[in-house]
Amino acid sequence: MRTQVGIIGAGPAGLLLSHLLHLRGIDSVVLEEREEQYVRRRVRAGVLESTTADLLREVGLGARMDREGLVHKGISLHFDGEDHYVDFERLVGRTITVYGQQEVVKDLIDARRRAHGQLLFEVRDTAVHETGSDRPRITFTDAEGRPQELVCEVVAGCDGFHGVSRKSLPQNELTVYDHTYPFAWLGILAKAAPVRDELVYANHERGFALYSMRSPEITRLYLQVDPEERIEQWPDERIWSELHTRLPALAEGPVLEKGITAMRSFVASPLRHGRLFLAGDAAHIVPPTGAKGMNLAVADVWLLASALSELLLHNNSALVESYSDTALRRVWRAEHFSWTMTSMLHRQPGATPFERQLQLAQLRYTASSTAAATSLAENYVGMPLTSPL
Amino acid sequence: MRTQVGIIGAGPAGLLLSHLLHLRGIDSVVLEEREEQYVRRRVRAGVLESTTADLLREVGLGARMDREGLVHKGISLHFDGEDHYVDFERLVGRTITVYGQQEVVKDLIDARRRAHGQLLFEVRDTAVHETGSDRPRITFTDAEGRPQELVCEVVAGCDGFHGVSRKSLPQNELTVYDHTYPFAWLGILAKAAPVRDELVYANHERGFALYSMRSPEITRLYLQVDPEERIEQWPDERIWSELHTRLPALAEGPVLEKGITAMRSFVASPLRHGRLFLAGDAAHIVPPTGAKGMNLAVADVWLLASALSELLLHNNSALVESYSDTALRRVWRAEHFSWTMTSMLHRQPGATPFERQLQLAQLRYTASSTAAATSLAENYVGMPLTSPL
Repeated sequence: MRTQVGIIGAGPAGLLLSHLLHLRGIDSVVLEEREEQYVRRRVRAGVLESTTADLLREVGLGARMDREGLVHKGISLHFDGEDHYVDFERLVGRTITVYGQQEVVKDLIDARRRAHGQLLFEVRDTAVHETGSDRPRITFTDAEGRPQELVCEVVAGCDGFHGVSRKSLPQNELTVYDHTYPFAWLGILAKAAPVRDELVYANHERGFALYSMRSPEITRLYLQVDPEERIEQWPDERIWSELHTRLPALAEGPVLEKGITAMRSFVASPLRHGRLFLAGDAAHIVPPTGAKGMNLAVADVWLLASALSELLLHNNSALVESYSDTALRRVWRAEHFSWTMTSMLHRQPGATPFERQLQLAQLRYTASSTAAATSLAENYVGMPLTSPL
Repeated sequence: MRTQVGIIGAGPAGLLLSHLLHLRGIDSVVLEEREEQYVRRRVRAGVLESTTADLLREVGLGARMDREGLVHKGISLHFDGEDHYVDFERLVGRTITVYGQQEVVKDLIDARRRAHGQLLFEVRDTAVHETGSDRPRITFTDAEGRPQELVCEVVAGCDGFHGVSRKSLPQNELTVYDHTYPFAWLGILAKAAPVRDELVYANHERGFALYSMRSPEITRLYLQVDPEERIEQWPDERIWSELHTRLPALAEGPVLEKGITAMRSFVASPLRHGRLFLAGDAAHIVPPTGAKGMNLAVADVWLLASALSELLLHNNSALVESYSDTALRRVWRAEHFSWTMTSMLHRQPGATPFERQLQLAQLRYTASSTAAATSLAENYVGMPLTSPL
């Protein structure tokens, strides 16, 4: 098999890259380890920056998002028993859209199918070869168990944190930045109509909690828990009791799904070796507090699609040369914002009384200063894709 | 002896309080442990917020400050080998004034003398009694060695971090918040004409450095050093060599004074017990990075003067009841700002590469985002005295 761009991973990064390349007349093949049904249902991120939503519209993927997505004009910070609204629309003139990652993925798969794009699911044993050459290859075993080889001009590694792509870069050329937070998020999906229209981020002395929603019928709720805790220690009644303590009024409903997620920051640099490029979670992880994960993946592949079309259509390598540095500036902006939100909102195990007061001072300042609230807002709704950062 | 307000300490807090009370027709006596000549020459803070400068003008103390003070319209952040200007005047329409604390103290002593105010220097053995009653007393030994008693209606503790006032509050009613930073500042005064017009805050991989000035002839320079280091380890050549490495071009000159200062945050709460009130460093310490120490002292006594005149002239205790909470909101704003500036600018011993990258991301963001720069600017020039914070 041959293609111009071999894409490993059918998450938002890989699928959107394939779509953007298609619009520029560049052929690609997407390889995915999981079944299609799994990918279409995988619940992950749910907040689209205005930048991300605009891009999806611009490339013909906005119709269902605009019908079903929930436009939020701000978020609430809840502390000291009170709500403090951060009005994104008033502060920066933009909004966010709550639309689950799995919905974006469904829209992308459907669009690739309509364009007769090649999506290969359930591939195994994926390996990348000769990334330093002009003809990198991907070998894999297809869904029918046959060994395959895909000869490419470029390989894009969009296969997430645990994928093979990052591990295929020469490890001695890679710098890794890693940070583990001393807490985790217990998340539930509940069949309960949201009682609030927008997200509530609560700093409570028992720990952080987040009120969010995925649709007019489904509430998504999170609790800060110890990273050592197991989900078995959290029967539904305990979860609801803790949510009621930490959050303003909410409605209960059957718990459809629950799980505990570690909180991590991770950046690998550079994002390129020869003809292998990394994008999205394959190269960087943010804690979910800033809702940046999927948006960073989208920003990466927006840059990468332009860079690859310059390279493949015009033999101009300027943008592929600058891809890593340019993408990483946005990544570090998002890492810093996510770290700031995380630090401001979570109970820090072992925090001194002085540190706890600093946290409250930061929350009060964010709630009372237009400059501080604007800073939160511009980061949350996302910096324009063309901003120099 | 009798007075309405017994003030312990002839620093900026105590002297300004005495002056503000005098303007409202309230009598006070200021007691100071040191000699007058020492107090008039003690080099400490040097940056006046616009709020502080405005207040000094308003109460008749602005003439020499306006003649000799240096008005700065912004500061530079220096990192990655480049200067990034934060333009306070453009961002928030206000400026700062560089005018040494000892100059403010001289102006205040001279004003108190002109008004025949009672300033007693070189007093010893100061002790505060019966602060829970309506007639608190201060006992002390005067400069001539005679035991004295000052009967007051109110006692104001403005005697700095090491003074007796804070220790005179019932210790079981006091909550203390304390934080020691893992570095110190080595500061020098040099007889060298400043080559820059405004302050330069440098984040260098060898550590923080600050370029500042006290007059058109005197440069004031600081280096981050280990808190364990002694000044003997820093001969002048070593200091200049390190300054040249961390800062942009500067001019050398004879070193007039040098010393190492620990970096600490400290807040005692509440600021009042009965008829004893704390103000300034007696109650709170900030690291010098945000240039907030003297300005907080001024804000405290501005509040306290109003509160005491309501109490003593109109028998209305509402403002003395709220004094501690109101003053502490500004204190915590300043603690948070000072901590933010300190964290952003210093080399953190033991910082991971991830934490170092976060710091650079924060610096880049502050230099490139109007919202972030405005946030720095509004904190640096000082929130209006009447702002709710």
